[in-house]
Amino acid sequence: MSDVAIGVDVGGTKALALMVARDGRVLGEMKSQTPHDEGFGAGEATTKVLVEQVNELCERQGLVPAQVPVGLGLPGMMRRDGHLAFAPNLQTASGADLGAQLSEALRNSSVFSENDANCAALAEHEWGAGRGIGDFVMVTLGTGIGGGVIADGQLVRGRSGFAGEIGHMVVQARGAACPCGGHGCWERYASGGGLHRMTREAALDGRLATLVDRSGGDPRHVRAEDVTAAAAEGLVEAVTLLREVGWWLALGLANLAAILDCGHFVIGGGLSSASELVLPAAREYLVDLVEGYDTRPTITVTTSMFGPRSGAMGATLVAFEGA
Amino acid sequence: MSDVAIGVDVGGTKALALMVARDGRVLGEMKSQTPHDEGFGAGEATTKVLVEQVNELCERQGLVPAQVPVGLGLPGMMRRDGHLAFAPNLQTASGADLGAQLSEALRNSSVFSENDANCAALAEHEWGAGRGIGDFVMVTLGTGIGGGVIADGQLVRGRSGFAGEIGHMVVQARGAACPCGGHGCWERYASGGGLHRMTREAALDGRLATLVDRSGGDPRHVRAEDVTAAAAEGLVEAVTLLREVGWWLALGLANLAAILDCGHFVIGGGLSSASELVLPAAREYLVDLVEGYDTRPTITVTTSMFGPRSGAMGATLVAFEGA
Repeated sequence: MSDVAIGVDVGGTKALALMVARDGRVLGEMKSQTPHDEGFGAGEATTKVLVEQVNELCERQGLVPAQVPVGLGLPGMMRRDGHLAFAPNLQTASGADLGAQLSEALRNSSVFSENDANCAALAEHEWGAGRGIGDFVMVTLGTGIGGGVIADGQLVRGRSGFAGEIGHMVVQARGAACPCGGHGCWERYASGGGLHRMTREAALDGRLATLVDRSGGDPRHVRAEDVTAAAAEGLVEAVTLLREVGWWLALGLANLAAILDCGHFVIGGGLSSASELVLPAAREYLVDLVEGYDTRPTITVTTSMFGPRSGAMGATLVAFEGA
Repeated sequence: MSDVAIGVDVGGTKALALMVARDGRVLGEMKSQTPHDEGFGAGEATTKVLVEQVNELCERQGLVPAQVPVGLGLPGMMRRDGHLAFAPNLQTASGADLGAQLSEALRNSSVFSENDANCAALAEHEWGAGRGIGDFVMVTLGTGIGGGVIADGQLVRGRSGFAGEIGHMVVQARGAACPCGGHGCWERYASGGGLHRMTREAALDGRLATLVDRSGGDPRHVRAEDVTAAAAEGLVEAVTLLREVGWWLALGLANLAAILDCGHFVIGGGLSSASELVLPAAREYLVDLVEGYDTRPTITVTTSMFGPRSGAMGATLVAFEGA
């Protein structure tokens, strides 16, 4: 078994590569822009960047790129056979088997792929905020909501490897339109994108009067970031909106608790700047929203230990496990 | 290992006991009224009936009640330690450890308990409509909606044994009030109780004009059974209402497919009289409601093989497994 592995979290905008030892120590790091060049075969431009990252990280440690196991954390529905079946934020790689392409380019037979949020769940379970916890859900709040479900100590992958698409759980039937084609998906209410949408709505219907004034009077100029900043200063209308996001977050967590009886949630992803207000509100609302809350042991909600590195950390576990 | 076991599905109105061989053959059956006598200790009246059933079934086969493993399928949140933590339909046994009571009364050390819908999932997985399928969800449509989740061939029990409370997944935030204290729970829309509620609403707001006429002009006299019967005859307003129940059913199934990537649903429980109309509608609506439907293998929805016997059949598996 190799004692180091490389994990790459391939996001829609950036690809973060880490070289990690079996005990979780980070030995090297490299961040690149994710290319969206068209005119290449599916995934080719992305693979070129991944090759550069693996070569660079190996060179720094004096290792041979063909001999270090590599794990890829990919943003979308990953089939168990390695193909990225559906990737709205990485469309130039949609349908491609990035792992196979990278394996061929590096002449490295140990390249493995997994959904990015599933990777994050694995990392938190092995080394982080879910360590020693058999039943928890990793929830990544970004533009949308990703998820990784750990049940009885095992990652739930599902029939095709698509499990954990928790952001597309409908919590408001016939609700807000979602880019997935559905309506009322959880991520339209409790993610960064949800905050953006709710900011717009609240500004237009008069619930953010102070922020509209500050933005020059045009409700369309109030941004989600303005709400977060104003809430940190204690502006009531902004605090109220972030607490509403917390309510929606709690609603989805309560659904997951009902279905899975998970006792713990690890929250990661880019909405963490707002999390100082959103998470306490979510914890508070959970008490009312979880069925039979009083008959259960306490349900805990914590932030991820590895933050934006969770996905890449977990991708190394996929590499260690596969190699 | 014993080659026969007894399983009892203890419902809110009836307790169905089966004696079953390891290969699934039913060797004996006994149905009793579930007692709701108060003035006894929690679960005592229920235990008395269970003792009678086990004794009777054993006597018929010439077996000793202390030596046949017994499984109980119980209607509510079952803790892993055997206590029935929360049982709205069997309140006189709420908080009791019926398994321990029965074990003591029979001097039988092999008595085991599990949630009833989890039992049904186990039965369908071992012998029925989920045989050989690694990822499926058992959905029991009765007054409410119960569930049992099989992931990668294993029953998901969750931290305390409460997993599968799928009927309390909220699909309509701030929606219809639910006896659990929540609002907008799936079971308020897609169960027998949901049909009842939606019948009342539709009758009151003029969408069941023919049935209101037939019932003597008072909208409050139209029953869910009238809708089911009229739909079977093709009455459009009734068919429309049952198709709406099918839409809500599909919505919840789509949520479960997103979270768990289960490829199959087994539908059981007492709403089966309506299932000839509800299930085809649900299958049709699933295509639009499941995220990335086209990128997944076909998702199938079938009725349970054992119908009202699923729970008791599965309870015998809990007994076989535990003994």
